[in-house]
Amino acid sequence: MSSTALLTDRYELTMLETAIASGLAAVPATFEVFARSLGGRGFGVVAGTGRLAEALRDFRFDDETLRWLVDERVIATSTAHYLERFRFTGSIAAYPDGELYFPGSPIVRVDAPFGEGLLIETLVLSILNFDTAVATAAARLRLAAGTATLIEMGSRRIHEQAAVAAARAAWIAGFDSTSNLAAGQRYGVPTGGTMGHALVLAHPSERAAFEAQAAAIGPSTTALVDTYDIAHGIQQAVEAFGTDLAAIRIDSGNPFVEVRRARKLLDDLGASKTRILISGDLDEGLVRRLVAEPVDGFGVGTKVVTGSGVPTAQLVYKLVAAERGGVREPVAKLSAHKETAGGRKAGYRRLRNQHIVEEFSIDPDVTVEPTDDTTLTALEVPVMLDGQLLEPESAALSRQRLTERLPTLGEDPNAILDATEPLFVCHHLGPSLPRSAKGHTTR
Amino acid sequence: MSSTALLTDRYELTMLETAIASGLAAVPATFEVFARSLGGRGFGVVAGTGRLAEALRDFRFDDETLRWLVDERVIATSTAHYLERFRFTGSIAAYPDGELYFPGSPIVRVDAPFGEGLLIETLVLSILNFDTAVATAAARLRLAAGTATLIEMGSRRIHEQAAVAAARAAWIAGFDSTSNLAAGQRYGVPTGGTMGHALVLAHPSERAAFEAQAAAIGPSTTALVDTYDIAHGIQQAVEAFGTDLAAIRIDSGNPFVEVRRARKLLDDLGASKTRILISGDLDEGLVRRLVAEPVDGFGVGTKVVTGSGVPTAQLVYKLVAAERGGVREPVAKLSAHKETAGGRKAGYRRLRNQHIVEEFSIDPDVTVEPTDDTTLTALEVPVMLDGQLLEPESAALSRQRLTERLPTLGEDPNAILDATEPLFVCHHLGPSLPRSAKGHTTR
Repeated sequence: MSSTALLTDRYELTMLETAIASGLAAVPATFEVFARSLGGRGFGVVAGTGRLAEALRDFRFDDETLRWLVDERVIATSTAHYLERFRFTGSIAAYPDGELYFPGSPIVRVDAPFGEGLLIETLVLSILNFDTAVATAAARLRLAAGTATLIEMGSRRIHEQAAVAAARAAWIAGFDSTSNLAAGQRYGVPTGGTMGHALVLAHPSERAAFEAQAAAIGPSTTALVDTYDIAHGIQQAVEAFGTDLAAIRIDSGNPFVEVRRARKLLDDLGASKTRILISGDLDEGLVRRLVAEPVDGFGVGTKVVTGSGVPTAQLVYKLVAAERGGVREPVAKLSAHKETAGGRKAGYRRLRNQHIVEEFSIDPDVTVEPTDDTTLTALEVPVMLDGQLLEPESAALSRQRLTERLPTLGEDPNAILDATEPLFVCHHLGPSLPRSAKGHTTR
Repeated sequence: MSSTALLTDRYELTMLETAIASGLAAVPATFEVFARSLGGRGFGVVAGTGRLAEALRDFRFDDETLRWLVDERVIATSTAHYLERFRFTGSIAAYPDGELYFPGSPIVRVDAPFGEGLLIETLVLSILNFDTAVATAAARLRLAAGTATLIEMGSRRIHEQAAVAAARAAWIAGFDSTSNLAAGQRYGVPTGGTMGHALVLAHPSERAAFEAQAAAIGPSTTALVDTYDIAHGIQQAVEAFGTDLAAIRIDSGNPFVEVRRARKLLDDLGASKTRILISGDLDEGLVRRLVAEPVDGFGVGTKVVTGSGVPTAQLVYKLVAAERGGVREPVAKLSAHKETAGGRKAGYRRLRNQHIVEEFSIDPDVTVEPTDDTTLTALEVPVMLDGQLLEPESAALSRQRLTERLPTLGEDPNAILDATEPLFVCHHLGPSLPRSAKGHTTR
């Protein structure tokens, strides 16, 4: 990957220049990423922490970039000198990918010299806001789809690099595979996909297309049967591929009508094991209703990669503490409707009988302990320690985490999906709380 | 840029494999990008054609990628051999960036061997769908904002590379500047931005922050005045920067109340030339209403980069012609609600008194001519000729194009923005139309 240093807002560099001049750039500070709202939903799913680590590794200013910044009068030559050998030297702790979050959850904590914390703001938010929006939409689709197969096929609807991140986020959130090959190569996400309408159209007949596909790759494939007439397409497909045909895909028409007809027709043709996949403008609501029909899998595109109507997680990055006179003090903004809670925070979640009872944040140096009937989960993991990047966890591990976390929200997926208010709010236990004795915490 | 070849859907490669086996891969074919709907709006603005050219230049399969594809059983070894020396050899004509489009407009025409046309589908759509969604949202904001300054500051709300493309698209569509530095470096988009809340919070007082900024960069800047109390912030800013302060920015509160108060206070303090910028969750509707208030500029973030509620342009890529028996014949799909018009097409627009009267498409080999009282604009430009990439036009030129195109939609920006149906539909003049004599066309 080339340098990520200019994937940032100009004002970060302008502020850095002022901070250098006023002696603040080197002052120890803490920034925090959190959400004020969940956009009318019950829960959010973090994604992007793993990609953030990659991006920070490549956050360097090369000579060409520094020359451009000076030539464009973005920065003075003296600031260019500061940036020449820039490496992020701070520490980052974050909710890992596949973790749930709520309003107020301290999703990322950046402890760094003030100037360094400023510089990475935009990149941190870009990555987390996009990936988290997709992961949240995907986790909801996972809840909606029950045990049906979910295939992410939205690459063509979104920026070509965003598509790769979206495929990763959707897989972490429970999708079974993606159409996106780069996500397979970069992150090990399982890829799938077999046939589009163009292949059928290019052949002299639908039957000829199916026979060509059967000859080339055999019946372990998915035949797209809706280019002309669906019933006729199914018949042609079974004749060409045989009754071992793995699946058919229907991409148009009224799915409630078509899947029943298709199931009956396949069974009548002896293809009772052939699975039915549907695609084409599916959303969470449709998937919830279609799950009762004889559908084996859903291909979801546009909606999942654009966050099902919430295309950005609207996470913010705020200064919450800065050292003054040798002491790191909480700072907080008082803008109308945009109050922030000051102070360094780490998030914890308390569960009873495997269900969340509360999430709270507290000074990371304070030790907290479970009560008799609860377990306590420390939610943050280290991403970077004093400038040293830790090995990011695999997407497979993040995916497994969410599999375990989703049931902690409650028994009934419908109630969870229907919630229009956050199911929990992460409340902050202020610095006045007495420090407890060292206790037992679980990860 | 590294290879873009895997920024694609797996099924493109599967179909290629079948097409190679059935002898179709080399057959001359034509694919087309078009929109079925505009998502409840009157017009769309094309963007991405320029980026597409860059991406196609880097569409190569390296050895490592081919090995991965074979190891993952995406393709057979024989297909890997086909891809080893793959270079796109076809021709591409497209509506250039900054051009208007309507349902049915043949936005991109790809004339290429069938297998090559398949391979680039996903990449073409990813780029055009994202960039076009942003450009359309941005052009609407431009119409809404009248002559006020528009600053794109949405980088932090969207994938970090998508943010760069969004800044480019918004500028082409009429924004004045972006916060995104990479867009400045890569595409020459003017960048801006001066101060965030973190700078104020990090200093011992708001006044100290303003004085530090004034000392570092002088009064030709924008002071963010809403960290604590807006009126107090304005007073502090004018005292620190002087009455030559270029602008203040207000990022919270009720803008209808705050900008009037701010204007009066600035005037009372003698800072009558200090401009007022507002930001913070602005959308098209708010901008339309605020334009009557004493606001000099708008900083728009989330809404513009996420397409103002339409985060993807939903453009599709369809096979419209393929050679059979030495003749390139139209092909068309008959899926329910997804009919496509077959045949190769080029788009033209007819204007009377500088206003659009119709847009139509016709076989590119047919010559069309203006009527006595109309002018005719040929809408497509060549992007690639027989595999040779043509130099993409500058973003500045694309921006100039849209400046000239927007007035052709009509006199009244409000009527244009209020339209919930397409203002025009590009209708196809089928192949039965008699070929007219060679006539005069304008570009």
